[in-house]
Amino acid sequence: MKKIYLDTKELPKQWYNILADLPSPMDPPLSPFTNKPVTFDEMKAIFPESLIEQEMSDKRWIDIPEEILEILSLWRPTPLIRAERLEKHLGTPAKIYFKYEGVSPAGSHKPNTAVAQAYYNKKEGIKRLTTETGAGQWGSALAFATKMFNMECRVYMVKVSFYQKPYRKSFMRMFGAEVIPSPSEFTNSGRAILEKNPDSNGSLGIAISEAVEEAAGRNDTNYALGSVLNHVLLHQTVIGLEAKKQLEMVGDYPDKIFASCGGGSNFGGIAFPFLADKFNGKDVEAVAVEPASCPTLTKGVYAYDYGDVAKLTPIMPMFTLGHDFEPPAIHAGGLRYHGDSPIVSKLYKDGLISAEAVKQLEVFQYGILFAQTEGIVPAPESAHAIAATVKEALRCKETGEEKTLLFCLSGHGFFDMASYDAYFDGKLVDYEYPEEMIKESLKNLPKV
Amino acid sequence: MKKIYLDTKELPKQWYNILADLPSPMDPPLSPFTNKPVTFDEMKAIFPESLIEQEMSDKRWIDIPEEILEILSLWRPTPLIRAERLEKHLGTPAKIYFKYEGVSPAGSHKPNTAVAQAYYNKKEGIKRLTTETGAGQWGSALAFATKMFNMECRVYMVKVSFYQKPYRKSFMRMFGAEVIPSPSEFTNSGRAILEKNPDSNGSLGIAISEAVEEAAGRNDTNYALGSVLNHVLLHQTVIGLEAKKQLEMVGDYPDKIFASCGGGSNFGGIAFPFLADKFNGKDVEAVAVEPASCPTLTKGVYAYDYGDVAKLTPIMPMFTLGHDFEPPAIHAGGLRYHGDSPIVSKLYKDGLISAEAVKQLEVFQYGILFAQTEGIVPAPESAHAIAATVKEALRCKETGEEKTLLFCLSGHGFFDMASYDAYFDGKLVDYEYPEEMIKESLKNLPKV
Repeated sequence: MKKIYLDTKELPKQWYNILADLPSPMDPPLSPFTNKPVTFDEMKAIFPESLIEQEMSDKRWIDIPEEILEILSLWRPTPLIRAERLEKHLGTPAKIYFKYEGVSPAGSHKPNTAVAQAYYNKKEGIKRLTTETGAGQWGSALAFATKMFNMECRVYMVKVSFYQKPYRKSFMRMFGAEVIPSPSEFTNSGRAILEKNPDSNGSLGIAISEAVEEAAGRNDTNYALGSVLNHVLLHQTVIGLEAKKQLEMVGDYPDKIFASCGGGSNFGGIAFPFLADKFNGKDVEAVAVEPASCPTLTKGVYAYDYGDVAKLTPIMPMFTLGHDFEPPAIHAGGLRYHGDSPIVSKLYKDGLISAEAVKQLEVFQYGILFAQTEGIVPAPESAHAIAATVKEALRCKETGEEKTLLFCLSGHGFFDMASYDAYFDGKLVDYEYPEEMIKESLKNLPKV
Repeated sequence: MKKIYLDTKELPKQWYNILADLPSPMDPPLSPFTNKPVTFDEMKAIFPESLIEQEMSDKRWIDIPEEILEILSLWRPTPLIRAERLEKHLGTPAKIYFKYEGVSPAGSHKPNTAVAQAYYNKKEGIKRLTTETGAGQWGSALAFATKMFNMECRVYMVKVSFYQKPYRKSFMRMFGAEVIPSPSEFTNSGRAILEKNPDSNGSLGIAISEAVEEAAGRNDTNYALGSVLNHVLLHQTVIGLEAKKQLEMVGDYPDKIFASCGGGSNFGGIAFPFLADKFNGKDVEAVAVEPASCPTLTKGVYAYDYGDVAKLTPIMPMFTLGHDFEPPAIHAGGLRYHGDSPIVSKLYKDGLISAEAVKQLEVFQYGILFAQTEGIVPAPESAHAIAATVKEALRCKETGEEKTLLFCLSGHGFFDMASYDAYFDGKLVDYEYPEEMIKESLKNLPKV
């Protein structure tokens, strides 16, 4: 049996909140203005109360409302697939399973939280959501989710991507979202940048500032974030909860779990439900896979830092390369983030998870091998998890270990064909680990 | 239950050959050179013997080899989905099911036959396949299939598409195919065109000529066609066979089946297994949905005609608008074909199926409505079936009929976002029925 399906009615009815099980408590996020723990009221300017409660909750299980389940069931449960042709090609004794999130409307795992965030905002009377998007995966997910609840959506899209990735923009437009190239004339943050440099290409940092500023300034409008925060990772745990059930159906359990890690949401989504077992003594290893050119966990420091360049977000305790670190322009935009989810960071600091950095060329090499054996074109972000899994499977081949490997295929690459062209044209390179740049940016960590 | 899955082991083990059940026999295809029925030997120049046998077989069930099942099982059985949110939005008492073929590696139903064709060619010692592609769906499918069997593949891609649809080209390249803009310097047909017009944009007719010429001239190389022929439709019947099982699982049976119809392969694929019941007295109606601007069944004539502009293919008995009819440039390239499958044509002539023409703007309007309710962006070709289904569901709303409707969602639209942009930008139009052009092209039917 290659594909392991779950019936719609087996969609998880509760999210797993790992905060309830952490061996030691999290350090609180701090206000960027006062350096004191962020208050509920401060967060209310841009988030609905139910999401703030989830952000801080210590309840192990949180019910998923029926209205969210109804939308998730358009594509969930997602298939778990045994990559038999890849195993055979590698000649490995390891078993390779992958959870395929690319079947979602936006083609990635992002809608799992977008739907939840849209729902809670709508329920609390919010009519519009703003957000930022770089490559476009998150913007697409939020556009879809707001359309499902008949809400409005404005996406500030990094200007260079707005023009270079027109089809992601088309996708958001199809789901009724307004897509604005950032920096824009709509916000003070945008106008300030444009005044200095009318030709600015924009950046994720600027786009976040614009989206947050607009949400903070309007009563009918909130802000939505696609990764990093606790409640975002919470919503993604449906991935791992389903995968556990599916592996149970074939009498299997992973020795090692691999997921690409930018802000941490797809890693948390697949890994946390298995970590719950690890806390109870089960032998399972979760590996966060990051780009060697943006090695937040493997080369960064654990410190309080801003989530964005413009210093508008709370100061969070996390692994970071410094909030003004600018990662090289690798073709996996979703992983070019200086920081990481505070929960994932803490787990790594406490030795409860591992991390591994992979290089761009091996990511594409193994991503293409995966497509050519299993027939699914992976997003370059997801191909990071593939690369680490394949390397482990090849290691098992040498040692003869019959390990069970599981990875999250977080999205398809149909909107990323240009990056595969760049690979085939020999235009991609392995960036050196940007040691000096990181040293510089780490000098600017906030003093708290 | 929204999604109805079948286990991998329930993948059909045999194709259904409708030729065994036709109330009266088919007229034979004729050689374009002799005007006499095409012989087995003539076909052997470009096709393997097993496919020629299938083309002419009157066996009702044909076994699917294990090697083909293994590849199909990468994505098959495909889901059958109840479009509950669409039903609710329309307020119709009709039940709407769709069979979703977009989950395949190439994103459409085309790999169902590409895999079979690659397999039989490989088995008979063929190392390379050639084909033509317009929009790129078929070329993508054959590239994938040949890679699965470690064969080489050359795709002649209509030059204007080669430059306008770069990501389809990237996809084929990813699966190891050589993609050549047509007309090319590789063939006499190509060189002849380029001599007359070095800036020729190419056409499907020219690309077919190039692919056939190359295959006919090399012993290690055969030609593969993505629609029209009997064996192609045979391979697609897995769609309808699965759908029947899936509807049985929920105790349902369709009153009406809708599928878009260009060459006829996705229509035949979903409809033929249900027509088998109709031949036994069951009340079910299959509707072939075509573009109003290329109305082969609804406005064409039933006659012997060439399959291509260059008159290199056999002369086939079919509904046609004339082999030199040039359909308007609608954004559903896969449906811009002057002719139709001989089997589909005969069924229509004999009153065993219906046909309906829909206009471009309603196709996009309802395609977008489908995306916004069900979360799947349809290919513009597939949106033809959606448009006809929605119109029927709205008719049921007026009459109060609780009909069960089934349509084939033959592919996703992730590579077609430019056409949705054109719609949103108000650049698409409803072409007038090109009556005069058709009258002219019908004057050039071959005399047989």
